[in-house]
Amino acid sequence: MATRSDLAFAHRLAEAAGEAIRPLFRGNWDEAQKADRSFVTEADRAAEAAMRAIIEAERSDDGIIGEEYGTRNEGAGRQWVLDPIDGTTSFIAGRPIFGTLIALMQDGFPVLGIIDQPIAKERWAGRTGEGTRFNDKPVRSAACRDLADAVLATTTPHQFSDHEADHFMGLAKAVAERKIIYGGDCYNYGLVASGYVDVVCEAGLKIHDFAALAPVVEGAGGIMCDWAGEPLHAGSNGNALAIGDPARLEDVLEAMNLT
Amino acid sequence: MATRSDLAFAHRLAEAAGEAIRPLFRGNWDEAQKADRSFVTEADRAAEAAMRAIIEAERSDDGIIGEEYGTRNEGAGRQWVLDPIDGTTSFIAGRPIFGTLIALMQDGFPVLGIIDQPIAKERWAGRTGEGTRFNDKPVRSAACRDLADAVLATTTPHQFSDHEADHFMGLAKAVAERKIIYGGDCYNYGLVASGYVDVVCEAGLKIHDFAALAPVVEGAGGIMCDWAGEPLHAGSNGNALAIGDPARLEDVLEAMNLT
Repeated sequence: MATRSDLAFAHRLAEAAGEAIRPLFRGNWDEAQKADRSFVTEADRAAEAAMRAIIEAERSDDGIIGEEYGTRNEGAGRQWVLDPIDGTTSFIAGRPIFGTLIALMQDGFPVLGIIDQPIAKERWAGRTGEGTRFNDKPVRSAACRDLADAVLATTTPHQFSDHEADHFMGLAKAVAERKIIYGGDCYNYGLVASGYVDVVCEAGLKIHDFAALAPVVEGAGGIMCDWAGEPLHAGSNGNALAIGDPARLEDVLEAMNLT
Repeated sequence: MATRSDLAFAHRLAEAAGEAIRPLFRGNWDEAQKADRSFVTEADRAAEAAMRAIIEAERSDDGIIGEEYGTRNEGAGRQWVLDPIDGTTSFIAGRPIFGTLIALMQDGFPVLGIIDQPIAKERWAGRTGEGTRFNDKPVRSAACRDLADAVLATTTPHQFSDHEADHFMGLAKAVAERKIIYGGDCYNYGLVASGYVDVVCEAGLKIHDFAALAPVVEGAGGIMCDWAGEPLHAGSNGNALAIGDPARLEDVLEAMNLT
């Protein structure tokens, strides 16, 4: 269970990460920095270090699972899951649609999530028992009567194995081709919560990629699950679906030939 | 040849389009509007109508080629080429990386181009004889010594025929997979001009999709051409490459098996 105090604390983590990231976006990199992309690593590490310092100072009993600096207090019931920059390619390419992901897991299940876009200053935040807010205003995912009307998002076709691609293509064929949008990473899930994207389908996400997303999507009235329709948790394989209108879950699984 | 006065005029067109588009982004659409996407059509038409009204009032001898309302003064030596919303799926999905495209063509060749993102208020503008500016500051595309270091962008894999996809995949294999970024439409070309994206490869663009892009990319020091390496013009087939470092053109064509 996440408290209001946990949520306020998570907002402070997002602020700290944003402060670390903003100066490193769209810099005047020299050729060597551009070739090895050291600036994104620098931003990633600085943002995670800033968040960890706050957690370690104020919530020292809680665990941490960080993309950059690994696990602290392994096995703790409460764990903060941090992905300082989800969408590193967007960051490198200068697109302001990457995000900082912050989740609180209780016994392996996400109970609080934040998706923060520090350049555009856009933030989605959700916790169990409280509706999702975007820049502090409540948001709702959209109704979608027919999958053929859905906007479907996925970050890259390269994430799918051949087998997974067959399932994805089933879904892609069920929606109009011009309503499939690529790129976007975590930002797509925020857009599901806000009602502009109807379905996101991805494969092989890591715990730090998906833990923050479920509370945001579900707190807005949507559903987030694995490809078997089951809730995401620490042991999930990382194949993920976010669906703005829960009434379309069966249609999605059917289109993907997963039923 | 585009004059400074033409460029100032084009900026005014972009302002007018932005005024028309902004109120229609991320609206509280009802289910029917969401299903038929009438709001994006409305934004598209309102923006083009606003630009055409200014051209017809102040440059009545010039021609217009508009995505929504077609051609005016067909065969005029000077033609304004307008795409009010390039990236309609991004617009629908609530991503602030679509753009308004404004080009001036002289005898079928683009001599001035604007890529305007009206939500983030980001604007790239270039004309022959003057360097490209981003929000009125000069920008340069990036050096890229090795294609393996390049960031490669393309909007969607679905734009390619099987035959074209083979060429694209040759290029995709020449760069690191995690440096390929999808989505983005015209915004990717602005990012080439600013030095964050190295190569964009697309197929089947229409005149209103590509006319504005070439002056922006080339005024920043990059090259924009068709898949044979030839300059884009009114008669091009719409297969387009933008390359930030012109020294990589031959490498790109070779990777695509087009030499």
